[in-house]
Amino acid sequence: MKARVYVTLKKTVLDPQGQTILRALEGLGYRGLQQVRQGKVFDIQLNGLSKLEAQQQLERIARDVLTNPVIEEFRCELED
Amino acid sequence: MKARVYVTLKKTVLDPQGQTILRALEGLGYRGLQQVRQGKVFDIQLNGLSKLEAQQQLERIARDVLTNPVIEEFRCELED
Repeated sequence: MKARVYVTLKKTVLDPQGQTILRALEGLGYRGLQQVRQGKVFDIQLNGLSKLEAQQQLERIARDVLTNPVIEEFRCELED
Repeated sequence: MKARVYVTLKKTVLDPQGQTILRALEGLGYRGLQQVRQGKVFDIQLNGLSKLEAQQQLERIARDVLTNPVIEEFRCELED
């Protein structure tokens, strides 16, 4: 079973890395850009679990290990 | 207009960061995990461009700036 966890900075948290990319892109001549924010994505392969177990384990992993709850938020997607 | 660019390592490229996370999760007692691979996601806000222009610019940015074509691949998504 394949799963994907997206970890992104909360909207209220400043993203200096994204701002640097935005300024670099503007410097390269790209127009119409307003904001760039960078996050992380984790592709996880799970085996031998039911869909419900996988979903629950994935949420636990995302919440307890992959995300810093002070500044980040996460979203999980489970494929079949 | 909101856009998202996913940048992930090519399947043939070793991901030591993902392997470290996998071993850490196993050490924490999580079962049924087979593979973890880490990638990047960029949330980009574009304004004042047509959908076609935005799509083309986004592909250029992803290909020329955000991705290292030797070891990474990308996927773009454009929302309305």
